[in-house]
Amino acid sequence: MFPAWMDFMIKTVSELGRSYIRRPDHKHTAKSVNLLCQSLLTRRGEASGVALAKDIVDAYSEMDNDCKIQFLEMIASDFGPDNDSVAKAAQAYLNNPCYDSIKGLSKALKSSRVDLIEMLNFAPGGIEVIIQMRELVLQELKQSKKLLPLEVDLLPLLSAWFNRGFLEFRQITWNSPATVLEQVVNHEAVHEIKSWKDLQRRLGKDRNCFTFFHPALHQQPLIFVQVAYTKGIPRKIGPILAQENGELKTKADSAIFYSISNAQPGLKGISFGNFLIKQVVDHISKEMPEIKIFSTLSPIPRFVNWLQNDYLKRSHTLFTEDEWKLLLKPDWYLDEQIRSQLKDKLILSCAHYLTSEKKDNQPYDPVARFHLRNGAKIENINWEGDLSENGLHQSAGIMVNYKYTPSQIVTNHEAYINQGVIRYSSKIKKILE
Amino acid sequence: MFPAWMDFMIKTVSELGRSYIRRPDHKHTAKSVNLLCQSLLTRRGEASGVALAKDIVDAYSEMDNDCKIQFLEMIASDFGPDNDSVAKAAQAYLNNPCYDSIKGLSKALKSSRVDLIEMLNFAPGGIEVIIQMRELVLQELKQSKKLLPLEVDLLPLLSAWFNRGFLEFRQITWNSPATVLEQVVNHEAVHEIKSWKDLQRRLGKDRNCFTFFHPALHQQPLIFVQVAYTKGIPRKIGPILAQENGELKTKADSAIFYSISNAQPGLKGISFGNFLIKQVVDHISKEMPEIKIFSTLSPIPRFVNWLQNDYLKRSHTLFTEDEWKLLLKPDWYLDEQIRSQLKDKLILSCAHYLTSEKKDNQPYDPVARFHLRNGAKIENINWEGDLSENGLHQSAGIMVNYKYTPSQIVTNHEAYINQGVIRYSSKIKKILE
Amino acid sequence: MFPAWMDFMIKTVSELGRSYIRRPDHKHTAKSVNLLCQSLLTRRGEASGVALAKDIVDAYSEMDNDCKIQFLEMIASDFGPDNDSVAKAAQAYLNNPCYDSIKGLSKALKSSRVDLIEMLNFAPGGIEVIIQMRELVLQELKQSKKLLPLEVDLLPLLSAWFNRGFLEFRQITWNSPATVLEQVVNHEAVHEIKSWKDLQRRLGKDRNCFTFFHPALHQQPLIFVQVAYTKGIPRKIGPILAQENGELKTKADSAIFYSISNAQPGLKGISFGNFLIKQVVDHISKEMPEIKIFSTLSPIPRFVNWLQNDYLKRSHTLFTEDEWKLLLKPDWYLDEQIRSQLKDKLILSCAHYLTSEKKDNQPYDPVARFHLRNGAKIENINWEGDLSENGLHQSAGIMVNYKYTPSQIVTNHEAYINQGVIRYSSKIKKILE
Amino acid sequence: MFPAWMDFMIKTVSELGRSYIRRPDHKHTAKSVNLLCQSLLTRRGEASGVALAKDIVDAYSEMDNDCKIQFLEMIASDFGPDNDSVAKAAQAYLNNPCYDSIKGLSKALKSSRVDLIEMLNFAPGGIEVIIQMRELVLQELKQSKKLLPLEVDLLPLLSAWFNRGFLEFRQITWNSPATVLEQVVNHEAVHEIKSWKDLQRRLGKDRNCFTFFHPALHQQPLIFVQVAYTKGIPRKIGPILAQENGELKTKADSAIFYSISNAQPGLKGISFGNFLIKQVVDHISKEMPEIKIFSTLSPIPRFVNWLQNDYLKRSHTLFTEDEWKLLLKPDWYLDEQIRSQLKDKLILSCAHYLTSEKKDNQPYDPVARFHLRNGAKIENINWEGDLSENGLHQSAGIMVNYKYTPSQIVTNHEAYINQGVIRYSSKIKKILE
Repeated sequence: MFPAWMDFMIKTVSELGRSYIRRPDHKHTAKSVNLLCQSLLTRRGEASGVALAKDIVDAYSEMDNDCKIQFLEMIASDFGPDNDSVAKAAQAYLNNPCYDSIKGLSKALKSSRVDLIEMLNFAPGGIEVIIQMRELVLQELKQSKKLLPLEVDLLPLLSAWFNRGFLEFRQITWNSPATVLEQVVNHEAVHEIKSWKDLQRRLGKDRNCFTFFHPALHQQPLIFVQVAYTKGIPRKIGPILAQENGELKTKADSAIFYSISNAQPGLKGISFGNFLIKQVVDHISKEMPEIKIFSTLSPIPRFVNWLQNDYLKRSHTLFTEDEWKLLLKPDWYLDEQIRSQLKDKLILSCAHYLTSEKKDNQPYDPVARFHLRNGAKIENINWEGDLSENGLHQSAGIMVNYKYTPSQIVTNHEAYINQGVIRYSSKIKKILE
Repeated sequence: MFPAWMDFMIKTVSELGRSYIRRPDHKHTAKSVNLLCQSLLTRRGEASGVALAKDIVDAYSEMDNDCKIQFLEMIASDFGPDNDSVAKAAQAYLNNPCYDSIKGLSKALKSSRVDLIEMLNFAPGGIEVIIQMRELVLQELKQSKKLLPLEVDLLPLLSAWFNRGFLEFRQITWNSPATVLEQVVNHEAVHEIKSWKDLQRRLGKDRNCFTFFHPALHQQPLIFVQVAYTKGIPRKIGPILAQENGELKTKADSAIFYSISNAQPGLKGISFGNFLIKQVVDHISKEMPEIKIFSTLSPIPRFVNWLQNDYLKRSHTLFTEDEWKLLLKPDWYLDEQIRSQLKDKLILSCAHYLTSEKKDNQPYDPVARFHLRNGAKIENINWEGDLSENGLHQSAGIMVNYKYTPSQIVTNHEAYINQGVIRYSSKIKKILE
Repeated sequence: MFPAWMDFMIKTVSELGRSYIRRPDHKHTAKSVNLLCQSLLTRRGEASGVALAKDIVDAYSEMDNDCKIQFLEMIASDFGPDNDSVAKAAQAYLNNPCYDSIKGLSKALKSSRVDLIEMLNFAPGGIEVIIQMRELVLQELKQSKKLLPLEVDLLPLLSAWFNRGFLEFRQITWNSPATVLEQVVNHEAVHEIKSWKDLQRRLGKDRNCFTFFHPALHQQPLIFVQVAYTKGIPRKIGPILAQENGELKTKADSAIFYSISNAQPGLKGISFGNFLIKQVVDHISKEMPEIKIFSTLSPIPRFVNWLQNDYLKRSHTLFTEDEWKLLLKPDWYLDEQIRSQLKDKLILSCAHYLTSEKKDNQPYDPVARFHLRNGAKIENINWEGDLSENGLHQSAGIMVNYKYTPSQIVTNHEAYINQGVIRYSSKIKKILE
Repeated sequence: MFPAWMDFMIKTVSELGRSYIRRPDHKHTAKSVNLLCQSLLTRRGEASGVALAKDIVDAYSEMDNDCKIQFLEMIASDFGPDNDSVAKAAQAYLNNPCYDSIKGLSKALKSSRVDLIEMLNFAPGGIEVIIQMRELVLQELKQSKKLLPLEVDLLPLLSAWFNRGFLEFRQITWNSPATVLEQVVNHEAVHEIKSWKDLQRRLGKDRNCFTFFHPALHQQPLIFVQVAYTKGIPRKIGPILAQENGELKTKADSAIFYSISNAQPGLKGISFGNFLIKQVVDHISKEMPEIKIFSTLSPIPRFVNWLQNDYLKRSHTLFTEDEWKLLLKPDWYLDEQIRSQLKDKLILSCAHYLTSEKKDNQPYDPVARFHLRNGAKIENINWEGDLSENGLHQSAGIMVNYKYTPSQIVTNHEAYINQGVIRYSSKIKKILE
C-alpha cells in the first residue's frame, strides 16, 4: 500500500525509541511529529520527501488544538537560524562588506523552518494545512509572542506563493460547485447569507460575485466581492438584500460593491483585496460598457463605538448636554425617535469621523482605510442605509458610498499615500460646512 | 483601451524627462525600463502594479539580447540591499543576539530585487519572462560574475514558486495540444525526435510520456520522461526508437525510462527530476500492476572523453601499448573492427568508469550521478547498445541500465548520500573481477 | 443586432397581413407562431433556419399555457402527412410491392411535423423547449386525443436523439454545480429531500448518486439513482435517510439503490432506467470490488390501494370478517395496534400481491414491474421498513428488497420476458407456503 | 472481466450451432455477426444491449473489406419491413384513411434495420463504426444497388443524430490536440497541407479554422473552413498558402474562406456546410467588427473538363478553329503561351460557365452550386489565381471569389431557390457583355 520508502521511514522512526512516544490511541504527539520534521530536514528527506511530508501533514490534522499549539511552539523554537553562524557571518560582513559576505549572512539567517514549510507543501493537501497552521499562529499571537518566529517565516513564504500573478480571477455563479458556494455562505462577513435561497438571490441576473482562486487550493475561494447592478448609486442596503427575483435592469448604469469578504483567515495580511477591486472594475468596464459608475455601499463598523467611547469623551460643542445623555443610553441607536432627533448631528459627526478621525495616521475606520487607500473617494453618507440590528449597532443605521472613478484611482491613491489626503464629494463638503 | 492608471503611469513616466530616453524607434532602452522598475517599487506600484509590470515585461520582451543583458546588469547592481542598513543591523545583532535583531538583519538583507521580481510576476506572462531572464543570467554567468546577485535572488524565489507541491503530474499523449508536443520535440535532449511521425511513435500504445506542469505556465512542460513497456530489460536503444507501430505487448513486465529531458533551461538547478522518476514509479506500480521491473536505458555521455583524456593519461595496465595507439586514433569508435578488438577491455574500463571514477566525490558521469543519487543501482553494461553516431561518439556505443527497485530506493539513496556507496549488480561485479 | 436574414424574415412575416395577428402586447399568438413554422418549412427555412427556429422557440416560451396548447393543437392538425399522397403510394405498393414502392410509402408518410421539430432543435435551447412541449402533450393526452399525432412524431424522434449511446454516465457529488443539485432536490420522487443539509447527507462518503446526462442538455440530469453502501441488505429506510454524518463503513459489502427518479417528465417513456441500473452495477463492481451484493430498498406504491380496492372485493379466505372491517377503516394503516394485529396476514398478502397480482400480464405494482423486468428477484419483504406517513399510506409501512445478482440478471430477465416468471427468494417462498 | 450477461450471451450464441461458423482464426464471419444482430433485436437485446452491441461493433471492425460488404448486404436484405404487414396496412389505409391507419402503416414500414442501427449506437465507439459503415455503403452504391435499403435507413437516422442543434461550433488552433490536427491534414480537400509547418502557417495569427464537432464523436471534426484575414479581397491563392509567418495585418477588413473540407466521408449528404458558413460570418461579425467583407477564394473544379468535353462539342462562335485546336492539345493549360493567347476568351467562357451552364437546373460547377445556393454572389473571376498543377489542370489557373454580403444572403438564396437566379457583380457583367 505504502511506497517502500515510507514503510522504511515509519519503521526507522519507530525505532527512534523512547523519545518517540505515541499516545495509547496511536496518535502522534507534538514530539513525535517534531521528530518526523527532523527526518524531513535531513538528507533522508530528499528520498522520501512527499511520503514523509504526507505523514506529518496527516499527523498534524489529527491532533487536537492543544497538541497543535505545542507542536507549533516546538517548530518556532527548534528550527530557527543558528546563533553562532549568524554572529560569525555578521562579523565577517562588518570586516569586509562585500557581496560574498552578504551572501554568507543571508545563508546563515535562513531558518530551516522555511525549508520545513516548503517541504510540507510537497504533501497532497499540504498547502491547506500550512494555511490552517498560520490561522492558529495568528490566533495565538494575540496572547503570546511564542509563535512569532514562525509567523515571521510563514508570511513571506505565503506571500510568495500567493503572488497575485498566480491567482485566478473567476466568477462564482449558481453553476459553481456546491463546495464553493458553501464557503461563500460560511465566509460572507458583511451581510449574512441566511439560506440557499438567499444565496441564489445574490447570484441572480442583476448580480455578480467575483473571486480570486489559487490553482493549488481547489474549490477554495481566497476572497470574494459581491456586486449589484443598479440605476444610480443606491443608498440603502435593504432592497439589495431583499429576496425578490432580480432581472438585470436594462438601464443599470452602476456597479455596486456591497460586500467584500476574505475566505481564508490563514492568509490574513496577504492583501488580495485591492487587486480584486481593480480587476473587477477593469472586467466590468470591458464586459459591460453601459456601466459607468463604480461604487461601494459600505458599513461603518466602528462609528457608534467611536462616538460613545472616543468622541464624547473629548470636549466638543456639537451635541448639547441633553443630546449627550441620549447617546449614553444603552442601545440608544435602536430607538427611532432618538435617532430622528439627532439625525443632522449624527450625519455631521459621521462625516467628521470618516474624513478626519485617524489612528496611526490612517483613517480610524477599517473599511474607510481599505477603500481610500485603494483610490476611492467618499461619495455619500446615507441616513438609514442599514436598519438591520447589526447596522444600527455599528453605525446607527448609517452607510457610506465609496466611489471608484477609474480615471482618478491612481491620483487619489497617490495623494492618500504621500500626503494623507482623503478625497470626498461636494455633498460631504456641504455636510461638513 | 488601457486602464486609466496605466495611461496615467505612462504619462508620468514620459514626463520623467531627459533621463527617460527611448530610442528613435520608440523602443524602450535598458535605462528607461529601469526607471519603470523604480516606479514599480515605489508606492505608486501598489496602485498600478499589474499595469506597470506588464509594461516592463513587454518592454523586456522586445529588447535585443545586448539590451537585455544591459538591463539585467542594472538590476543586478542597482536593487541590492543597502550597505549601511546591513552594517547597522549586523552590529545590532552582535550587540544583542536576540530574535528581534535577527528580524532586523533579515529585513536589511532583503533586496528590493526580490520585490521587483515578485511584482513582475503580476503581469500576464510575467513568469515566462522571469524564467527567460534566468536563462540569460545562467548563460552570462559562464563568462562574468556581474549577474550573480540576480541569480542569488532568482534561485530561491523560483524554487519557492516551483515547489513540488504546486507541480501537476500529467501524461503527454497524441491527444495533447500541438503546442505541448512541439516543446517535447524541441527539448528532447537524449534521442532526437526527427519528425512528427517519430513523435507519434514515442506516444504509441506501448509507451508513456510523463511530465510535470506548473499551473501558471500553461501548455509548457517543465520536464518529461519517456517510458517504453517491454518484456525484460532491453539492452539496445535501436528497437525502441524504431518507427514500427507498437501495440502494447500484453506480456510486458518492465518499464524502461529511455529519455529524461528538462524543457525549461531557465529553471536549471531547481530539481524536479528525482521527484518525477519517483512519481512515475508509483504511478505505474498502481496503474499497471503487471509491471514489476523499473529500469533506465541510459547513455554514458562522457565515457569516450574520459577514456581518452583522463584514463589514458594515467599510468595503468589495462590496455597494451598497441591498443592504446588505437584509442588515440581520431574517431576510432566509428571503426567496428577496433571496437570488436577492444570489446572486453572497453566494457571493463566502462564498469570501472561508472563505479569508481569520481569528481568532487560524486560519479564523474552526470547521468550516473543523477540515477545513483536517486536510489538506483547499475544493472547492466550493454555492448553496442546505441550505434547511432552520437552513441558511438559519446560512449563507443555502450549503454547502461540503471535499475530502480522500489523496496531498495531509500536504502540505496541513503548509502549513496551518507557513505558514497555505489550499488551495482552481480553482473557488473563479475565484469570487475 | 439581428443577423440580416432574421430582420428580413421578421419583416416578411409581418407583411403576411391580417392573418398574422399579434396581440396588443406584441406577444405572439398561437396562429402567428404557426405562420413562422410554415416559413421554417419552406425553402426560406434553409437560409434562415437557426434564426427562425430561435424566434419560434422564444415565442413559444413566452406563451401562457392555453396559448401553448392551442399552438400544439395546430401543429398536431396542420402538419400531418398528405392523405392523397399516402393513398396513391399505398395503391402503388399494392400494385407492385417492391423496394421502390416501399420508399414511396415512407416518403408520403413522413409528416412535415417531424421536419419542423428537427428544425426547432436548431435554436439554442431548442431541445429544452421540445421536451417541455412533450411534457404538455403528455398531460393533455390524459383528457383528449387531439395531440396524439404530435406524440406519435415526438416519441421516436426523442428516442433517437436520446439514444443510450449519446448519454453520459456521471456521478453527482457535493462538487457538482448548484444548478444540478437543485434539480436533484426538485425531482427526487421517492424520499423527499427536505433541505440542503439533507442533500449533503445523500452525497456523503458512504453514498453515491449516479446519473445520465445528454450533451445537449447542459447541467440537466435525465435520471438519477441514489446508492448507499451498507453491511448487509438493510430492511428499514429510516437509518439511511437519517442525517448523521456518514463515514464509509470500511466493511460495507452491499450497494443499496434506495431511490430512482426521473428528472425529465418530458422524456417519459424513453427508458433510461434499466440502462442506468446496469451501468451502476458494472461501475461499482469495477471500482469497489469489495461490494458483492446489489439490492434495492423499495416502496410498494400501490399495495394498500390494491388491498382495499381490489383484493378485498374478491372472495377470499385470508382475512376474517372482523379483520376485514379493520382494513376498511379510514387510515387504518396509521394505527399501530391494527397493523400489529394483522402483521402476518399483511405480509402474506403483500407477498401474494408482489408475486402473483398482474395487470396486462405484468406485475400490478409499477416498481416491481421495473425491477423484475430488469432481471432482479424479490429478496425480502420488510415489515415496518418505512414508517413515514407516505410509507404507511402506500404500503402500511412495508418495503421490499429487489436483489440484482450480476450472474443472474440475463436469465431472470429472459424468464420474465418469455414466460412471465417472477423470481423470488426462499424467504418469500416460505411466507407464501 | 466481462459483465455476466455478456458471458452468457457469448455462450448462448456459440451454442447456436453449425450456422454460427467462426473462421479458424476465431474471427467472426458476416454470418455469425448477423446472428448477433438477430439476438440484439430480440428481447434478449434489452437485457444485454450494450454488451451485445459492443460485440457486433468489435467484430465488424476486425472484418476485412469483403466480409464487411457481405455483412452489410445481409443487413440490407434481411432486416427490412415485412411485405405482408405492409400490404395489410396499406389496404387498411385505403379502406379507412384515418389517423389510426396512418399509424398502422408507419409501424409496418419501420424496418428492424433502424432498431438495429440504433442499438449498435449503444456500444462505445458505435457511432464511429456506423459512420464507417455508411462510407462503405456509399462507395458500394456506385457499383450496385444492393445496399440501397441500408442507405435509405441510415441517412434519416444520421440526419436526426447530427441535427445542427447538437453540433458544437469550435475553433481549431495550434493548441488543439494533435489527433484533431492530424485529421485536418488528412481531410483538407482543396489545398493540400504538406507538413506540420504548413499546418502551423494555416493556424497563424492572421488565420482561423472553424469547425463543427458532434459531442459523441470526440476529437473528430465534421467539417472545417479555413479563413484568412486580408486587406481587400485577394485574387491569388499563392500568397495565402505561402509559408511566411503571418502577423494579423491590423488593417485587415476582409475574411476570406479559402478552403472548406468535409472530414467525415460517411456523413456525406448531411449538409453542415451552409450552417457552418453562416455561423462563421456571424461569429466574425461579432468578434471582429473591423471585418466588413466576407468572400471565398475558390477553385472551379470542372471548368477545363467542361470546356473540352461539353463546350467545344457544341456549335459556338467564341473560339476560332485555330484556338480550338490549341484547346484540344493534351495539357494545353500547362503552356503559359497558349494561356496568354487565349486569356480573354478563357475568362469570358469561364464567366459563361459559372453564370449560365446548368445541370439538373443547378450550376454545373459543384463549388458554384454550394455558394450560390447559400446566398453568395459571384464577385470576381481571377486570372492566374492558382498556378499550382492542380489549379491549372482543373481551371487553367483561374479562381473565383464568391462574396457573402450579410444583408443580401437571404434574398440571394431565395431568388436562387425560387427563380434560379444567379447573382453576379458588375465586373462579371462587364465581362459577359
